[in-house]
Amino acid sequence: MKALVIEGGKFSVDESYAKPAPERDEAVIKVKYAGICDTDVQLASGYLSFEGVAGHEFVGVVDGGSEAWLGKRVVGEINCPCGVCEHCLAGRSKHCTYRTVLGINGRDGCFAEYIMLPTVNLHEVPAALADEKAVFAEPLAAAVNVAELTHVAPTAEVAVVGDGKLGLLVAQVVSLGGAEVVVVGHHPGRADKLAQMGRPVPILKPDDPPGGHYDVVVECSGAADGLQQALGCVRPRGTVVLKTTIADPYNVDLAPAVVDEVAVVGNRCGPFGPALKILSEGLIDPTPLIEEIHRFDELPDVLARGAPGLKHLVKFE
Amino acid sequence: MKALVIEGGKFSVDESYAKPAPERDEAVIKVKYAGICDTDVQLASGYLSFEGVAGHEFVGVVDGGSEAWLGKRVVGEINCPCGVCEHCLAGRSKHCTYRTVLGINGRDGCFAEYIMLPTVNLHEVPAALADEKAVFAEPLAAAVNVAELTHVAPTAEVAVVGDGKLGLLVAQVVSLGGAEVVVVGHHPGRADKLAQMGRPVPILKPDDPPGGHYDVVVECSGAADGLQQALGCVRPRGTVVLKTTIADPYNVDLAPAVVDEVAVVGNRCGPFGPALKILSEGLIDPTPLIEEIHRFDELPDVLARGAPGLKHLVKFE
Repeated sequence: MKALVIEGGKFSVDESYAKPAPERDEAVIKVKYAGICDTDVQLASGYLSFEGVAGHEFVGVVDGGSEAWLGKRVVGEINCPCGVCEHCLAGRSKHCTYRTVLGINGRDGCFAEYIMLPTVNLHEVPAALADEKAVFAEPLAAAVNVAELTHVAPTAEVAVVGDGKLGLLVAQVVSLGGAEVVVVGHHPGRADKLAQMGRPVPILKPDDPPGGHYDVVVECSGAADGLQQALGCVRPRGTVVLKTTIADPYNVDLAPAVVDEVAVVGNRCGPFGPALKILSEGLIDPTPLIEEIHRFDELPDVLARGAPGLKHLVKFE
Repeated sequence: MKALVIEGGKFSVDESYAKPAPERDEAVIKVKYAGICDTDVQLASGYLSFEGVAGHEFVGVVDGGSEAWLGKRVVGEINCPCGVCEHCLAGRSKHCTYRTVLGINGRDGCFAEYIMLPTVNLHEVPAALADEKAVFAEPLAAAVNVAELTHVAPTAEVAVVGDGKLGLLVAQVVSLGGAEVVVVGHHPGRADKLAQMGRPVPILKPDDPPGGHYDVVVECSGAADGLQQALGCVRPRGTVVLKTTIADPYNVDLAPAVVDEVAVVGNRCGPFGPALKILSEGLIDPTPLIEEIHRFDELPDVLARGAPGLKHLVKFE
């Protein structure tokens, strides 16, 4: 099968990569759409020393393995835990010591014609939900995860630092819960995107948010100075939800966070169930985020260009 | 009256400093004992550009002002809120925008014969509780505040990074709740101190705590590398309680904290009620922490030497 393979910090298309062979309780899935995440761009440049097939956002149809799932259209959770380590047994299987992660850590991902996942990771996509929306289940789940770990009260005032793909999704999800949300960013046209996605949310320029004000600040700028900005606009006893990972250490003044008793809470990928529900009910339309839909053959070029703008999708034959 | 006055980043004794004049609902307190905190040493070196009388740990007797409190032996909460700002009205008066703080911010402190506080800040000291113990109410309250903001389950495993005064108090308090506690530090003799205080707690050398293990890590090392150490030994989804403030920005790698969804929670001074209760019931004996008891005249010299070791007290005539 065709696959985009990363090896030694470089990537290339392998036309005859081995198709995955399922064992018990595993399913082989023929990929219909894959989404490109900033993580994929980083992995393609050697981040985490990843080797293998990248890609972790997909929608596809089960084509082999588990008979119960054959023919079903699915999306899939990306973490594959061992089930028996300290963290798995404590109910934190997402943090399994021995986990593999689809297209990120020890497991081939979805920039390929076929992928394999344990059936326990799969979610059937409702018939009425278009592929182009279902493929957003993974990034939308990451946005949903803000409220999974942090109490965002319906009366909360929330600032989302960063107006990229994740920032816009987070703003939509948090707004659904009733909170007053602003997005902090400077890219043109993002207010229109937010309105098209379902819920208009005001955008403030980076210098404009009032200091020490917001109950919750979600940092998804992807920039090294985003955390300091987030700390500047959170209120005493408020929470900064930290989504951004940067390769270098942060240089950040935390003394005000101690005095103000602010919580900085790391936050990673999230639960697919609520994300699929939100998409199915049409509460959020992610398709305004689509920058461009590519053929698989164009994938190396898109990665090389850093997949600029909003969401790049790959449509398989 | 005599007072230790900081001005222009220098300190000196003023023999004729004006005695405070109380208004309605205020009390003047004749100081019996004051404790020296690391913050005092920093203020004496120009930290926060503090001007006035330093010192915020005391026990004394009400000598003027409120008639209801006259003659009572008291300790006192150090934050004086406005009562009407956004934070006060939201129940966060400790974070009042316009607060003064005894001996730290806009209010003369207890390195003086007399101080003044609103009566609402005062707690009467039970007759059986010795001055030398009551003077620890403020630092013990700061230790109690760990559990005020962070759930420390009775089955939790807790690491306290730092074996200074605050670290030892935190270890004692957290241990009272049932949690398994270790202290991480390298100062000799601290295990004996912990046992003398009431509850033996094991001490690990800085390289010894297992990585990714502890449910809660309390960082009170006072050192710039303490936070990185704390992040190294907290488990996924665990909490680092950050007590240490350093003057310079932290240089800290937070990417693992995002992936592991760790919470870093700032934590400052705390509630006096539980602290006095713990002292009164004899659950923790803070007096093994006493390094030396000084006369007021010795205070400038002790501050100049950085008040090394554990707790230095000043006994007034």
